[in-house]
Amino acid sequence: MRSVANQWLREVLLTLYRRSTATRAEIMAETGLHASSVSQAMRPLLRNGTILKVGDLESNGAGRPREVFNLNPDAAYFISVDLEAQRIRFALLNFVGDIRYRWEEATGWDERLEVNKVFHGIRMVLRNLDSRQLSRVLAVGISYPGMLDDQGRLTAFNLGLHDFPLLSELREKASAHRMDHLPVFIEPDRHSAVVAERWLGRARGYQNGLLLFVERGIGIGLFLDGKPVEGWRNMAGEIGHLMIEPGAEDLCGCGKRGCLEAIASSPSMIRQYLESTGQPSSNLSAFRITDVFEKARQGDPAASHVVERAGKAIGLALSYAINLLNPQIVVLGGDLTSADDLFLPRIEREINQNGVPQLTRGIEIAVSALGLDMRLKGAGALAFRKSLADPALLRKMCSPVSLARGSVLPAT
Amino acid sequence: MRSVANQWLREVLLTLYRRSTATRAEIMAETGLHASSVSQAMRPLLRNGTILKVGDLESNGAGRPREVFNLNPDAAYFISVDLEAQRIRFALLNFVGDIRYRWEEATGWDERLEVNKVFHGIRMVLRNLDSRQLSRVLAVGISYPGMLDDQGRLTAFNLGLHDFPLLSELREKASAHRMDHLPVFIEPDRHSAVVAERWLGRARGYQNGLLLFVERGIGIGLFLDGKPVEGWRNMAGEIGHLMIEPGAEDLCGCGKRGCLEAIASSPSMIRQYLESTGQPSSNLSAFRITDVFEKARQGDPAASHVVERAGKAIGLALSYAINLLNPQIVVLGGDLTSADDLFLPRIEREINQNGVPQLTRGIEIAVSALGLDMRLKGAGALAFRKSLADPALLRKMCSPVSLARGSVLPAT
Repeated sequence: MRSVANQWLREVLLTLYRRSTATRAEIMAETGLHASSVSQAMRPLLRNGTILKVGDLESNGAGRPREVFNLNPDAAYFISVDLEAQRIRFALLNFVGDIRYRWEEATGWDERLEVNKVFHGIRMVLRNLDSRQLSRVLAVGISYPGMLDDQGRLTAFNLGLHDFPLLSELREKASAHRMDHLPVFIEPDRHSAVVAERWLGRARGYQNGLLLFVERGIGIGLFLDGKPVEGWRNMAGEIGHLMIEPGAEDLCGCGKRGCLEAIASSPSMIRQYLESTGQPSSNLSAFRITDVFEKARQGDPAASHVVERAGKAIGLALSYAINLLNPQIVVLGGDLTSADDLFLPRIEREINQNGVPQLTRGIEIAVSALGLDMRLKGAGALAFRKSLADPALLRKMCSPVSLARGSVLPAT
Repeated sequence: MRSVANQWLREVLLTLYRRSTATRAEIMAETGLHASSVSQAMRPLLRNGTILKVGDLESNGAGRPREVFNLNPDAAYFISVDLEAQRIRFALLNFVGDIRYRWEEATGWDERLEVNKVFHGIRMVLRNLDSRQLSRVLAVGISYPGMLDDQGRLTAFNLGLHDFPLLSELREKASAHRMDHLPVFIEPDRHSAVVAERWLGRARGYQNGLLLFVERGIGIGLFLDGKPVEGWRNMAGEIGHLMIEPGAEDLCGCGKRGCLEAIASSPSMIRQYLESTGQPSSNLSAFRITDVFEKARQGDPAASHVVERAGKAIGLALSYAINLLNPQIVVLGGDLTSADDLFLPRIEREINQNGVPQLTRGIEIAVSALGLDMRLKGAGALAFRKSLADPALLRKMCSPVSLARGSVLPAT
């Protein structure tokens, strides 16, 4: 019985997290739970301040006004970490998924992942909290690029990592930094991106979609028939290494030539621009991708050619994914969000040219609105969802909240 | 309560269908049902002869010998129809999925689908049954190539069909042939192929796999995380129209040039062989794909080149699907089953060359053993599964069986 009641708690909390606000009737509709189960779950949550009544809606017929609830933003905190290239980004997320504090650790273009920096960053986030808040930090969610094998080793070509022992490093360094009391949940970046887009972004309500993000690497998140696609070893989604131009000279971080990532990732676009304008490739890290985009907008032929080629390659790769998987929506993220004027028409043209009309007809090609926070928010959301499954963490988030609301942290 | 008991019946019958034989303990393990539920479901099934005790196993410890059960082959029949190119194939399947009778209707290379032939073929199958058997024919399962839209219109480039009103034609012609009492379940050929491979073939027990079949067209069946992939409009799996050689001359049935199907389908391979040997393309239907394979085996340069190019294209397309989806097994079917000596090494080489090593390492590339019966068996299995969900059909298959076993039909 206890575990049934926990299951009701979980479903009510998850519904409020995903919807942000909800009435009892909406919670019942979304969870499929009976009124009595919803009431039984909500009673202790309201008493302890885990959820709050935030208003009343007028009755939609006979009866009393409908009460509206949301999560208490200060009932729990999560730290999210995004192992991006060039930097590690950190955020403190409150219980409604808002970012309350940010931190960044820089890493060079060619620097190996230094796991000490992960814990240093977490410490820099935690020092903003008082002891009562610290007691409500539930977990850390880490979003990683690339592929993790079943021994916890990470291969991320765009970070220069091959069989990097991520899990054992995290365990070891957590202990060295005396943070082993904090549960750490790690997720492929494509999962954190997909959850962010499906819970908070453009893909909300869709059952079949692709989320493509172009940055230092190129990744894709897939959700089909309502569920994220995992694959045999949880490695589905390596679109960056489709051999999109067999015979091309462009060398990829994976060691092959002609991969999508070698043509259309942000550093690959910068490299091609530098090469075709006769500049030394050592300029790579001094140049920003937005510079290339800006030059293309001004009609610079070299920059235009680079963008044209990358857009064509991305569109062709997407046509493959669309033909194979029949998604309803494709969301473009990462650096593409700052250049949709350049890329969107090119990508759409290529998809229409190469995709099967029955599959491309009516498909939505959209640009993400979450920007750089996409994976940070997604990693936090996933840490929340995994915390729900842990009875001790669930108990913690449902324990009485004694904080004054919004009293301490500066909004960012 | 009635529907709960029906659910137990369904799970017991489905388990016996998939396993062919099973003990009570195996049924419990596979369904997760309690002993009492399994017993309650099996009692009427045994009494009515829907299932049969076929033997005893020695006890695996203390206790009595374990009884082994299977389905009564004559408790129900299904007709399966495979809308292949060049012919429509029919089979009568008994309750254990064995083919008891076959029929074929020819269609020309370029002939439009004639739905009257579907019902004529069904009639030719049914005339072999006496009235008691006829009363146990539960349903027809039709396997179709291509894509069916939400108005029931079929587009199958390799059959020359564009928006062909398949569903309304089936309804109309069923009525004209006075067969509208027979439930008809239609399934994409990739689903029937996947079910056959997963229930009866090489992919049994796998959770993530691809099934590629090369014939007049090229199709792929996907199952990921244990489930078939459907996509937004139930059209996932159009690997035949990946633009595998942009700029190539080869014209595809879909109107584009350079699709996988235009290079590696069986008629495309024959066409290329005829072209490169200066023969008129009107020879297309006189030539068989096995002739091209045989010439390639004898070292004929034109045939070898065709096979080489097709194998490379198939391997490249598979590397895309593998990178995107991380399957554990790839099963090759259709005409490839008669030329695995020619294709398998070429395809494996291409997959290894173009796929991400983390995803290709340890992957199994296998050739289907089901041959031409793959889709017929799969369509029958799917008709069985859908009949389970229909209370009237479930009642029919569980009603007392009065036939002497195996008394009537010739085995084929």
